[in-house]
Amino acid sequence: MYALYCENNQLMLRQNYPKPVPQPDEALLRITLAGICSTDLEMVKGYVSGFAGVLGHEFVGVVEECADSNWLGKRVVASMNIGCQTCEICLNHGPEHCPTRRALGVHDKDGAFAEFMTVPVRNLFEVPDNVPDERAVFAEPLAAALKIREQVKIRPSLKTAVVGPGRLGLLVAQVLKLAGGDVTVLGRRHSSLKLPESWGLATGLTTDFADSSFDLVVEVTGNNAGFVQALRLVRPMGTVVLKSTFADDKQLDMTKLVVSEIEVIGSRCGPFAPALRLLAGGQISTESLIVADFPLTDGLAAFEKAAEPGVLKVLVRP
Amino acid sequence: MYALYCENNQLMLRQNYPKPVPQPDEALLRITLAGICSTDLEMVKGYVSGFAGVLGHEFVGVVEECADSNWLGKRVVASMNIGCQTCEICLNHGPEHCPTRRALGVHDKDGAFAEFMTVPVRNLFEVPDNVPDERAVFAEPLAAALKIREQVKIRPSLKTAVVGPGRLGLLVAQVLKLAGGDVTVLGRRHSSLKLPESWGLATGLTTDFADSSFDLVVEVTGNNAGFVQALRLVRPMGTVVLKSTFADDKQLDMTKLVVSEIEVIGSRCGPFAPALRLLAGGQISTESLIVADFPLTDGLAAFEKAAEPGVLKVLVRP
Repeated sequence: MYALYCENNQLMLRQNYPKPVPQPDEALLRITLAGICSTDLEMVKGYVSGFAGVLGHEFVGVVEECADSNWLGKRVVASMNIGCQTCEICLNHGPEHCPTRRALGVHDKDGAFAEFMTVPVRNLFEVPDNVPDERAVFAEPLAAALKIREQVKIRPSLKTAVVGPGRLGLLVAQVLKLAGGDVTVLGRRHSSLKLPESWGLATGLTTDFADSSFDLVVEVTGNNAGFVQALRLVRPMGTVVLKSTFADDKQLDMTKLVVSEIEVIGSRCGPFAPALRLLAGGQISTESLIVADFPLTDGLAAFEKAAEPGVLKVLVRP
Repeated sequence: MYALYCENNQLMLRQNYPKPVPQPDEALLRITLAGICSTDLEMVKGYVSGFAGVLGHEFVGVVEECADSNWLGKRVVASMNIGCQTCEICLNHGPEHCPTRRALGVHDKDGAFAEFMTVPVRNLFEVPDNVPDERAVFAEPLAAALKIREQVKIRPSLKTAVVGPGRLGLLVAQVLKLAGGDVTVLGRRHSSLKLPESWGLATGLTTDFADSSFDLVVEVTGNNAGFVQALRLVRPMGTVVLKSTFADDKQLDMTKLVVSEIEVIGSRCGPFAPALRLLAGGQISTESLIVADFPLTDGLAAFEKAAEPGVLKVLVRP
């Protein structure tokens, strides 16, 4: 089968990649649509050392083989983390932080930029009939955005800033807006703010924004400077949520964190069921985020497109 | 009067420093005992640029002048932050984070290493009769330790590490122990762990400690490496409290913060009333922390003593 395979920081289109064979606890999915996220782009740069396999963890597929026949033919999405199911963390908190976890397209397990993939049945979520593939493919990043609301009490009166109007940041902004909050989207370019402006959100250039009165700042820039800006923008005793996996700025002002008693929370994968409910309810704009839709055989071009500045969601269709 | 005065990173004993005159909202205190904390030592190194004045914010005194005659002759301690009382932060959260705040011995206001000082009446707390000066002088740092319990839900079943068995860290460890928690004190030298061991606390060398299963890690090292160690020691989805004002390590692994969804909370000044209740109740060991007691006229020697490695509380007596 065709697959987008990554090894030694090299992405390549494999034409005769072996079709996966499901384990007894797995389903075989025929992938119908997949999305490229920033983590995929970082994977190609070598973020997870030693990964060699098929990328992709945002996807929709149809179950073609499964021990549980109830799943056969179902249209599904799936969460990416596969825990050992026996350690204290798996038993008490789920698979996201299992120390020996695998993750679809990220750790020790092939992902979704392929014609077929295998996924543990326990990771599957059925897609409601009224949610087309082009919306369902946002279930994973929307779940990640919703994770913030699992971690922080989002009071409707919070004054919130989302720093980084990218493919994930714009889902975060919409999720926070649903709480009735005062949400401002901050970015580095005016062009990146047009879409959130069209949704009625306040916007501004991050560096021009002198205000340090935000109760909550969500950092979704994916670059090193984001955390520094977030600490600058948050009010004393306020909260900063970090969604960027790769922030490691060398000039972090930890003194402000202590003196102003800031709370900083790292945030990663989130709950699929509420993401699917919101997608089914139509409360989240997703079509506006789609920039391009490439066939899998043009996957390398899809990755090039997704890496361009300001480009939001690029889809890959097997 | 005698006073320990700091200017341009130079600490000096002033013999004829002017006795302060209280404003209408202030009390004049005759200082009977004061303590040297790590912030005082950092002040001499120039932590707060532009400060020129008398250091000291941990103290006990007797009210000698006050518009409200009820305070006259009372033995008191006092909180250090003086807010504007009119801004949104003062009105909603108190003076600790007022953007134009002054602070006793730290910002625009003389402190307690002197024979007399003036303090706003609203900052005063009467010391219970059964709490001698040598215990009451710990009210300020004990309040800072208690602040953690205002910020984090300290469940009795939490597995907690306190990194940094110094003058503040050992108060933090005692406060956490009072919640019934499993508290481990970690330090860089065996000698610094003898005191917490004598209290029945688990101890260990920070760098030897491979365990990353702490639900809560409180970082009280006062040095750059503390935050790195705290992030290493905390479990996924755990909490790190930063008490060190000067952590600005250049190799912070922010990736772990996001991937493991760690919560980091800065923590500073705390509530005096519960600190005084605990001191009156005798639940906190303070006498064991006192290393030396110098007359104010030997204040420079007191600072030298306090700066020695492993030295806990040094008192200064006007």
